[in-house]
Amino acid sequence: MNPDRFSINQMTVKQLPLPELVAHCVRLGVPGVGLWREPVREYGVEAAAALVRDAELTVTTLCRGGFFTREGWEEDNRAAVDEAAALGTDTLVLVSGGLPPGSRDLPAARALIADAIGVLAPYAGERGVRLAIEPLHPMYASDRCAVSTLDQALEIAERFPAEQVGVVVDTYHLWWDERAPAAVARAGAAGRIHSFQLADWTTPLPAGVLNGRGQLGTGAIDLTSWAALVEKAGYTGPVEVELFNDTLWVRDGAEVLEETREAFLAV
Amino acid sequence: MNPDRFSINQMTVKQLPLPELVAHCVRLGVPGVGLWREPVREYGVEAAAALVRDAELTVTTLCRGGFFTREGWEEDNRAAVDEAAALGTDTLVLVSGGLPPGSRDLPAARALIADAIGVLAPYAGERGVRLAIEPLHPMYASDRCAVSTLDQALEIAERFPAEQVGVVVDTYHLWWDERAPAAVARAGAAGRIHSFQLADWTTPLPAGVLNGRGQLGTGAIDLTSWAALVEKAGYTGPVEVELFNDTLWVRDGAEVLEETREAFLAV
Repeated sequence: MNPDRFSINQMTVKQLPLPELVAHCVRLGVPGVGLWREPVREYGVEAAAALVRDAELTVTTLCRGGFFTREGWEEDNRAAVDEAAALGTDTLVLVSGGLPPGSRDLPAARALIADAIGVLAPYAGERGVRLAIEPLHPMYASDRCAVSTLDQALEIAERFPAEQVGVVVDTYHLWWDERAPAAVARAGAAGRIHSFQLADWTTPLPAGVLNGRGQLGTGAIDLTSWAALVEKAGYTGPVEVELFNDTLWVRDGAEVLEETREAFLAV
Repeated sequence: MNPDRFSINQMTVKQLPLPELVAHCVRLGVPGVGLWREPVREYGVEAAAALVRDAELTVTTLCRGGFFTREGWEEDNRAAVDEAAALGTDTLVLVSGGLPPGSRDLPAARALIADAIGVLAPYAGERGVRLAIEPLHPMYASDRCAVSTLDQALEIAERFPAEQVGVVVDTYHLWWDERAPAAVARAGAAGRIHSFQLADWTTPLPAGVLNGRGQLGTGAIDLTSWAALVEKAGYTGPVEVELFNDTLWVRDGAEVLEETREAFLAV
């Protein structure tokens, strides 16, 4: 893929402190970063905003708002929108949350999520921040995200203006779904692809199934076809590489960043 | 659920040698068992058949044929059909296989699977054995089963007579899918529900994601609604409880069997 579209998600190299991440991006000509709230808040939101602005880096997304099925979601999500605006990114990624405590009702959880997004969307829109609903792999349906398919994410997003609510297309979460390609086309036609993220599918999955996302090219996903599919849908913006992977995190962060950039170019 | 419909899948209490499993079923009035090829072959197919026949147990399924994307699938699957017929069960469960080595093409894998079933179905039909395609959770798509949804399983099954090819409805694999209820109704109306299996969804998932199926009632799945759904679709046959769970396997097998029967009755 074109190096101008590469964005490194901060979690891929979470061992790098923010100033080092920024310095390595500048050195390598990486134009974009996807940031996470926790490390940004630890560094200071205003200081982080100045750091990336001075380095002329584009903040492609802030991860993450969501968890709408938990108590206290509203205050936390308004704060996430404010932080996104302060960082100068136009996109807040939403991991929507799983079943509320004691519930076994997935449709009800999805209804809660849609209602919460209805509350949050105008607030975000006023601040120039788009909400991007990320469907997560069905293996996270109970505890992280009841929105499991791109069709479900779109069904919620389409209730709102595209400049307020869209979706994240992440290969790791969607690759298995034969209905995803049609949903990508529909999302692209409506201008609702607010983020495109790459990660590969490798097995065996680790305990907890969170930190086993494979380096690009090492797994089961035909990433080149996915890139073509999303481009054909009209999305030509930044492409984030977001790998949660214990084996990458124990290595030298700069080395992982360079390797990831090479793997991106090879897609 | 009605105790007359209870069938214990052998894997749930794999610590029990076959004669002990059979004896405990007789003692508890458990009418059915789902058997697995490996322990049956170890005991001897004919001896196992005599054992369950003498105990007047119904063998509700034999697990498993499949892995059609591997070399040598045909000979192995003909043997599985023969073993099912020898055991007196009418249903062979198919775990169809994931991506062939080096492939990243899921639709091609599904086409291979459909072709293989086309070869196997008449052979099975002549021996009074129905093939039951089991859609596995999408987290197994790359390495165990490229058939991830009940819609996909039905799409293959419907190419063949219902007395030759149907599907397995397993709550563990399907619970997250909002399209599954409609597919259950469609499968039931066509007489293609050849097995109904229960397991609950518990998190965190263990490494490898194979052996974390929850005891009924301990997880996220609304099993009572699923039982009603499948019954409404016209399926009133045996219901297997199939739990792959390391924490159950280290316990006393008879105790686990009794607990599982109680959990089944409570659904």
